[in-house]
Amino acid sequence: MGNFSITATYTDLYQISMAQVYFLTGKAKHEAVFDYFFRKQPFGGGYTIFAGLENVLDFLHDLHFSKQDLDYLKSLGLQKEFVDHLETFRFRGTVYAAHEGEVVFPNEPIITVVGNILEAQLVETILLNLINFQSLIATKAARIKSVAGNRVLCDFGLRRAQGLGGYHATRASIVGGFNATSNVMAARDFEIPAAGTMAHSFIQSYDDELTAFRDFASQKPDQCVFLVDTYDTLKSGVPNAITVAKEMEQRSQRLSGIRLDSGDLAYLSKQARYMLDAVGLQYVKITASNQLDEYVIKSLLDQQAPIDIFGVGTSLVTGPPDAALDGVYKLAYAGGKSRIKLSENLKKVTLPGKKQVYRLMHNAGKFFGADVITGADELSVATMYHAFEPDKFLDLSRLQREPLLHKVMENGKVTGNQPSLTKIAAYTQTRLSLLPEEHKRFEYPHIYKVGISKSLQDERNQLKSQYKK
Amino acid sequence: MGNFSITATYTDLYQISMAQVYFLTGKAKHEAVFDYFFRKQPFGGGYTIFAGLENVLDFLHDLHFSKQDLDYLKSLGLQKEFVDHLETFRFRGTVYAAHEGEVVFPNEPIITVVGNILEAQLVETILLNLINFQSLIATKAARIKSVAGNRVLCDFGLRRAQGLGGYHATRASIVGGFNATSNVMAARDFEIPAAGTMAHSFIQSYDDELTAFRDFASQKPDQCVFLVDTYDTLKSGVPNAITVAKEMEQRSQRLSGIRLDSGDLAYLSKQARYMLDAVGLQYVKITASNQLDEYVIKSLLDQQAPIDIFGVGTSLVTGPPDAALDGVYKLAYAGGKSRIKLSENLKKVTLPGKKQVYRLMHNAGKFFGADVITGADELSVATMYHAFEPDKFLDLSRLQREPLLHKVMENGKVTGNQPSLTKIAAYTQTRLSLLPEEHKRFEYPHIYKVGISKSLQDERNQLKSQYKK
Repeated sequence: MGNFSITATYTDLYQISMAQVYFLTGKAKHEAVFDYFFRKQPFGGGYTIFAGLENVLDFLHDLHFSKQDLDYLKSLGLQKEFVDHLETFRFRGTVYAAHEGEVVFPNEPIITVVGNILEAQLVETILLNLINFQSLIATKAARIKSVAGNRVLCDFGLRRAQGLGGYHATRASIVGGFNATSNVMAARDFEIPAAGTMAHSFIQSYDDELTAFRDFASQKPDQCVFLVDTYDTLKSGVPNAITVAKEMEQRSQRLSGIRLDSGDLAYLSKQARYMLDAVGLQYVKITASNQLDEYVIKSLLDQQAPIDIFGVGTSLVTGPPDAALDGVYKLAYAGGKSRIKLSENLKKVTLPGKKQVYRLMHNAGKFFGADVITGADELSVATMYHAFEPDKFLDLSRLQREPLLHKVMENGKVTGNQPSLTKIAAYTQTRLSLLPEEHKRFEYPHIYKVGISKSLQDERNQLKSQYKK
Repeated sequence: MGNFSITATYTDLYQISMAQVYFLTGKAKHEAVFDYFFRKQPFGGGYTIFAGLENVLDFLHDLHFSKQDLDYLKSLGLQKEFVDHLETFRFRGTVYAAHEGEVVFPNEPIITVVGNILEAQLVETILLNLINFQSLIATKAARIKSVAGNRVLCDFGLRRAQGLGGYHATRASIVGGFNATSNVMAARDFEIPAAGTMAHSFIQSYDDELTAFRDFASQKPDQCVFLVDTYDTLKSGVPNAITVAKEMEQRSQRLSGIRLDSGDLAYLSKQARYMLDAVGLQYVKITASNQLDEYVIKSLLDQQAPIDIFGVGTSLVTGPPDAALDGVYKLAYAGGKSRIKLSENLKKVTLPGKKQVYRLMHNAGKFFGADVITGADELSVATMYHAFEPDKFLDLSRLQREPLLHKVMENGKVTGNQPSLTKIAAYTQTRLSLLPEEHKRFEYPHIYKVGISKSLQDERNQLKSQYKK
């Protein structure tokens, strides 16, 4: 349990089985191009926040099989010659990706991996694992941030997180707009402000609440927040908090806040605010927690609940009701040719070849509401076609465009400096501010268009008819 | 990314803040008792499978703060005297728990931690994190197993798992009744059979499907499973699989199976079975995957789909729509006294003191359908009372009973041998077989009763009235 090394075996067995076949048949060095994209917006929303890229790049940079891994693979019956090859395996591919924190949409490539087919295939599972999860959580965080505005948002989710998934959940919550976390390890490793108050058990361990508050304040006068609902919020918790806050003032200290964790948070926050203000404790902030999500927070604020800080747990770190983004990693090019996967469902037919995505912008700088996928080397695209309904198209001639995919790793080395988490979080908010409001509403958001260029449409049609024969 | 050490900082900051107060005020050595329990069955079902205990015990055994942790805690402003104390901190408490794999119900203690209040408080977050998650997934797996019967169940979820949560998700799926996993690292560490087929990308990387199958079979004739839906399942995939299977027979090899991953799995599996059987390939097994869960599998089998192996991903490893079990860890005893948490909602008032849980059994050995929570030292309990409706009670005189909580760790050391994962999984199925069917149905299952003894009811009432004053 103690040491948990994430090596190249944090993957699906079939990646290694396929790699063995590529190796033994001499195909391992063939160049391949894979695209990461997802098909369905989470939470019934109108956008997704792309997150987890930095962790994927770190993983690719360090990717290797340990001695323990190699011994295990041999025990599974994989061939010695192949396992010996894996001993010196390193990822030396090239990666193109959207900026982490980008606002992204279904069916457009968000990451493109170019490398030999062995390495590009082997990294599928961990890439999907990290990007699907962090993008889900960053999106949930952004939705919560969109209703909470400038109030402080704190991740309290570790106890309900999906096991060790809690580690990256916290990072993703910051990408999406959260300000702090209770998760000490994530705070340490990702340089996130750590925050926390006290548990009911602390107060219960005393014979009375007042003494519990006094002891806590005496030992932790800075950032001191009292949990006020252990016995009775308005009759016991808030009055005792006021008593100790006044005692702290005598020592030139200031109580930071109180936390409400049960009952009607709208009613209780108003009553508590009134009681605090009545004795000159306007500076004492109110934190609320207990089964919060974007809908509950919106409702609380619609009711003018005077809550300064929201502590969000389960809903933030597990992203219900979806619990997973449906991202996939599909082969687009191999062995010198563009490749396609067919399906009876046209929406599941993949886009062949190496591609670029352009975001279309109004001259005023706001997003126009459409992205166009093109071949990687197409210089100009005058018309965008609907990806699945060939008779729908859009004239792009009056729109600005900016490329979404940038080279972030070359031959296994990260290119340029990776932005800090703070910068990534700021980028998320900047990009969201450019997205028209109709794509951001929770109920039936306006669908952002993702189309394809004429030449991409032609290439797909040609490959389709070739395979249909 | 590479090395990820789970130390005592994989916790909420407030655990450490409270520990500091206990330490500085001289309360750190006071004995405390905490109970783990949950309040709501996941998935609207009638039972929960308790999982994750072995990992929690391993964690408690290894629990420590690293040098990096201690430096970080000092940087947060925690006091040097306290942080120095944490340097030698080890968990030396005693733990009582249900057997891993036990069928458990809301509001009953499933784990009880007894130790000094500093250590017993500090372990809250990791215990909740691991138990809530693994119990959720083991329960989902058991529900799937309950419809799949003796068909093979394979975890294919890593790519959609919540980040590193995928590691323990796989373990929990085995506790609940799954047979194998695609997750290589989890297979290696938990000694689970590893399984896998091939991806669409493998076939796409060839100019034609037949050559792809031939190459795969030539290099991996054992456990060879062909994915047959890349271009057209019945017109291309299955015929090509048959061709190569017949070629393998010439080499005295046998194709293990085919995998269906899209389309109507009931229709396609029947057609594929017919085509395989018609040419004497009765031994070739059919695997199905693609957005499966307990409802889809039940429907497929109701339609007599001839599927031998189910590969289950997202729904298994993330447990939607709940995505979290709502387990909590509540103080029941501290500083020589039983403790209680009040709430306006009687269901959230905790049960005081150290307790035991008894499962009531028919003489025939099946579960009666009720558990009773008692004081730890109550020798006989004649009547069980409803936990929240004091006028409802049940005569227990004709029922057998067996204790649920057993000592699993004493003074920080695991007592006895931990059962293997295989044994735990067998225990789950044995216990589920004793649970009457009406608690196992998916729709509005009969509610299993969890009651309390008279003396526990009296103690709770006494403490309630004491705090209400």
